[in-house]
Amino acid sequence: MQQGPPELKGKKYPAKSHALKVKQHFLTKRPEFSNDKQAAFLIAGSNLNLYPYCDQTAPLRQNRYFHYLTGVEQISGAFVLFELLKEKLTLYLPEIDEDDVMWSGLPLSLKEAKEQFDVDETKYVNELEKDLNKLTSEDKTTVFTTDTDEYSTQSFASLVLAKDNDFFYALDESRLIKDDYELSLMRHASKITDNSHLAVMSALPIEKNETHIHAEFLYHSIRQGSKFQSYDPICCSGPNCGTLHYVKNDDSMAGKESVLIDAGAEWKCYASDVTRCFPINGEWTKEHLEIYTAVLDMQTQVMEKIKPGVAWEDLHFLAHRVLIDHFLKLGIFKNGTKEEIFKSKVSGWFLPHGLGHLLGMDTHDVGGYPNYEDPDPLLRYLRLRRKLQAGMVVTDEPGIYFSPFLIEHALKNPEQKKYIDEEVMEKYMYVGGVRIEDDILVTEEGYENLTGITSDPVEISRIVKKGLARGKEGFHVIV
Amino acid sequence: MQQGPPELKGKKYPAKSHALKVKQHFLTKRPEFSNDKQAAFLIAGSNLNLYPYCDQTAPLRQNRYFHYLTGVEQISGAFVLFELLKEKLTLYLPEIDEDDVMWSGLPLSLKEAKEQFDVDETKYVNELEKDLNKLTSEDKTTVFTTDTDEYSTQSFASLVLAKDNDFFYALDESRLIKDDYELSLMRHASKITDNSHLAVMSALPIEKNETHIHAEFLYHSIRQGSKFQSYDPICCSGPNCGTLHYVKNDDSMAGKESVLIDAGAEWKCYASDVTRCFPINGEWTKEHLEIYTAVLDMQTQVMEKIKPGVAWEDLHFLAHRVLIDHFLKLGIFKNGTKEEIFKSKVSGWFLPHGLGHLLGMDTHDVGGYPNYEDPDPLLRYLRLRRKLQAGMVVTDEPGIYFSPFLIEHALKNPEQKKYIDEEVMEKYMYVGGVRIEDDILVTEEGYENLTGITSDPVEISRIVKKGLARGKEGFHVIV
Repeated sequence: MQQGPPELKGKKYPAKSHALKVKQHFLTKRPEFSNDKQAAFLIAGSNLNLYPYCDQTAPLRQNRYFHYLTGVEQISGAFVLFELLKEKLTLYLPEIDEDDVMWSGLPLSLKEAKEQFDVDETKYVNELEKDLNKLTSEDKTTVFTTDTDEYSTQSFASLVLAKDNDFFYALDESRLIKDDYELSLMRHASKITDNSHLAVMSALPIEKNETHIHAEFLYHSIRQGSKFQSYDPICCSGPNCGTLHYVKNDDSMAGKESVLIDAGAEWKCYASDVTRCFPINGEWTKEHLEIYTAVLDMQTQVMEKIKPGVAWEDLHFLAHRVLIDHFLKLGIFKNGTKEEIFKSKVSGWFLPHGLGHLLGMDTHDVGGYPNYEDPDPLLRYLRLRRKLQAGMVVTDEPGIYFSPFLIEHALKNPEQKKYIDEEVMEKYMYVGGVRIEDDILVTEEGYENLTGITSDPVEISRIVKKGLARGKEGFHVIV
Repeated sequence: MQQGPPELKGKKYPAKSHALKVKQHFLTKRPEFSNDKQAAFLIAGSNLNLYPYCDQTAPLRQNRYFHYLTGVEQISGAFVLFELLKEKLTLYLPEIDEDDVMWSGLPLSLKEAKEQFDVDETKYVNELEKDLNKLTSEDKTTVFTTDTDEYSTQSFASLVLAKDNDFFYALDESRLIKDDYELSLMRHASKITDNSHLAVMSALPIEKNETHIHAEFLYHSIRQGSKFQSYDPICCSGPNCGTLHYVKNDDSMAGKESVLIDAGAEWKCYASDVTRCFPINGEWTKEHLEIYTAVLDMQTQVMEKIKPGVAWEDLHFLAHRVLIDHFLKLGIFKNGTKEEIFKSKVSGWFLPHGLGHLLGMDTHDVGGYPNYEDPDPLLRYLRLRRKLQAGMVVTDEPGIYFSPFLIEHALKNPEQKKYIDEEVMEKYMYVGGVRIEDDILVTEEGYENLTGITSDPVEISRIVKKGLARGKEGFHVIV
C-alpha cells in the first residue's frame, strides 16, 4: 500500500459515525421512526460488470453511498445494513469463490474485514436474505434503500423500500458536510494533484502533443498511489481550450500558445479537481495574460467572499461582474454600463458554466440541487444552489472562453451583439479559453484553500521556463 | 491525432469488407437468405452511461461488433445497418445536441462521417425507425441483431430479431481471421507495447513500489497515443506474481527479487497482450532463472510448432510436458516418468491457466469456444479450443507459479503429492511466478511473432542493469 495521510494511521474510515449522521437527518423528516416504528438502511455496493460478449470487466467504481457507510473500496457485490434503533452496522461480504482465488488471490476474511472497517459485525452475503426476512416480518422494520439495481433479480429485493426521498435527503445532507477524516483524504488527494500539476508545468520540453500532458499527469498521480483519477483529465491547447469538457487530448501543440489542464487525483474514493493554464513557451502573450489576469481576479474576488451564509448564486454573479469589468477595460465589451451589460446576459457566452460545484466522493458532489431548467441562462449550469455552510468543499473555478460556436449566439442577438466589439474580440480568439480552479473548504471563519499549486502567472512562467531550460534530460519531478 | 501505422495513411477501416465477410459466413448457415428471403444486420454502438447518482459518465468502450462493421470508436449512441441483398452499409449517427456542443465540441457532420468511414451512407438516428419499418414491412426483411440492450425501450426494438446463433457465428468467424488492415493496427499496438515494456525494464531506480511499474507502463503507452490499455495492467513483485490476475499493483518491492508485468496497449480498439518478467536488481537469482528458463523453453517449443492445422490443445499439453521435464531436472518433481506425472495432472497446479487465447479487438477474442465445464481440469481454462488457421492471432503465454493456495490442492491429493519434492519446491516459493507472453500471428507457412520486446534473460539483465547504472537522472526512454 502507498502511504496515506499520516494523521489517519491506525484510524478507520468513520462509517459508523456516518451512519449515525444519516439517521439523525432521516429522523428530522421521519420522526415516526424515532420510537414506535423501526427502520433500517440497506445499500448494495457496486458489482464488477463484464463488457458485452467479453470476459473482461469494466473498472469497479464503488457506489458512493455504500462507501460512505462502510469505507469499502475495491470489493464487488457487498452490502451494508444499518438498524436505526440498535444503531448496528453490518457489512455483508460476498462468499469466497474458490475458482476465483487463483486469479484474484484470497479475499478479506470476515475477521480481517471486521478489523479493517468501522462496522459492528461482518457476515457473508448469503445471510442477508434471512436477516432481512427476520427484520421485516418479525420486527416489522421498514428497510429503506436507494435502489435495487444491483440485485433486482434476488428475491430479497422485494423486502426493501427503494427511492424514498427522505432517505436520499438524509444521505446527501450527511455527505454535504465533510468530517475531519474525509478532509484528511481530500487534502491528500489535493497534495497528489498539486505535485502532478507541477510536473506537467515542468515538462514542456517533452510535451508536444496534448496526449503527453495527459500521460504526464497520470504518471505522477499513479506514482503517488492514485490509481484512479476523479474524472477523465481535460488536456487542451490553443483554441481547444474553448471546449469545456474536451477529452480528446490528442492534438498537436505546435504553433499554439496556451495550455489548459483540468485534472484531479482521487484518494480512497475522494476527489480533487484542479485546473491550471500556462503559456507553452513560458512567456505569456499579451492577450493570454490579460484573460488570465481577468480570470484570476474573478477567482480571487469570489474566494475572499467565501464564508458560511453566503449564497453561491451571488458569488456566481460576482464572477460575471468582474468579467464584465475586465472586458470593458480591454475593449471587448463597449456601449454600456457594467449593470446594463450584466442584465443583457451576454457574459454568459464567455462564461457559460457555473462558478463551481460541491466536491467530495463525486467530482460534482451530491447536495447541490442544481436546476438545469432554470429560466435564467446564467444559472442553468450552476451546480450549487444554496447557501454555503462550514464543512462544505466547493470548487472556485471561473473561466473565460472564446468559442466561435457560443459567440455566434451572442452575435445573433442584437441586444447582446451591441455590447461586443468584434474587432477587439477577434484578437483574443487564439487563446481559446482560460479556467483557474481551486478546491475550497468553507470554514467557520471563512475558507481554507486545499489547492497548493500556484496560480500566480509570474510563478507559473518561472516554472515553465525552468523546465524548458533543463531541456529533455532530467526534467522529471519524481514524487 | 497521434500518428498511426504509415501504411494505413489515407485508408479507411475496412468496414464494408467486414460486412461482406459476415454475410458470407451467415449464408453458409442460412442459405435461404441468398435469394428468396431478405435479411439485414443491425448493431447498436455503445452508449455513454452515467455512474449511479452522478453526472459523470463511465469511459466509453465501443461495442466490438459495432466497431467491426464501422470503424467508429468514441461515438456514443450510433447504429449500423447492413442490407444483405443490396450490400448496403448505413451508419446512423446521433443527432447534434446543441446543449452538448459547448461541453464536448462539435460532433462529426454526416458528410465528414461519410468521408471518414467506409460506409455507403450516413444518416441521423432519428431516421432509423422509419427505415426499419420500411425494411420489415414493405420489404419483408428479417433484421438480425446481437441484442437490444442499448435501446430496449425504443419502439423499433420490436422490429429486430436478437440473439440468433447463426448471426453470432458469422460475426465471430469473421473476426477470427484478421485482414491486413487489422494486422497493421495490431502491429502498431504491439510496437507501443514493446516500447512501454522496455521503459519499465529500464526504470528500476525509480520503481520501488508496484504502482511505479504501473505508472511507467501507462505513461509510455499514453504518450504514444494509446489512451486506453487492452486490459488493466498486472504489475506484481515477489510472491504476488503467483496471483494470475493481480491488479492491486500497490505493494512495496523492497526485499523482493522478481517482477512480473502483464500489460498491453490498445490501438484503435485493437489489443496487444504481453508479459515480461525481470529481476529487480538486474541479476537473476539461481531459482528465478531456472524457472524463467523453463517457461521460456515451454514458450519456444510451442512457438516452433505453431502453424495452420495444429490443435491448440496439443500445444497446451506440450507446454505441460516441457514443464514436467524441467521440474524433473530441477528435482521439484520426482518418483515418476514424464507421462505418469502428466497423467496425474499435478502440473495443472503450477500452470493453472491456458497456454494462450485468441487476440483481436478483445483481449480474449471471440471464436475460441472455451469449455469452462471440461471434465479435464487441464483444459478447463483453455480459451482456444480449435485448430489453428492462418490469420488468427494467438498469445503464446505459458507460466509457472508457486501459489500456496493452489499447491495445497496437490498436497491434499496423494496421487499428486507423491510426485512433489516439497523440500526442493520450498526453495522456489519466493519466485512467486513467471509468465512469458508474446502475440503470434498464424501464417500460411507457420507464424510471425508480433511482439518485439526481448525475452532473452541475458539481454533483460543487461537492460535492467543499464537502467540501474544510469541512476535516478535521465532514465526515461522517451518514445
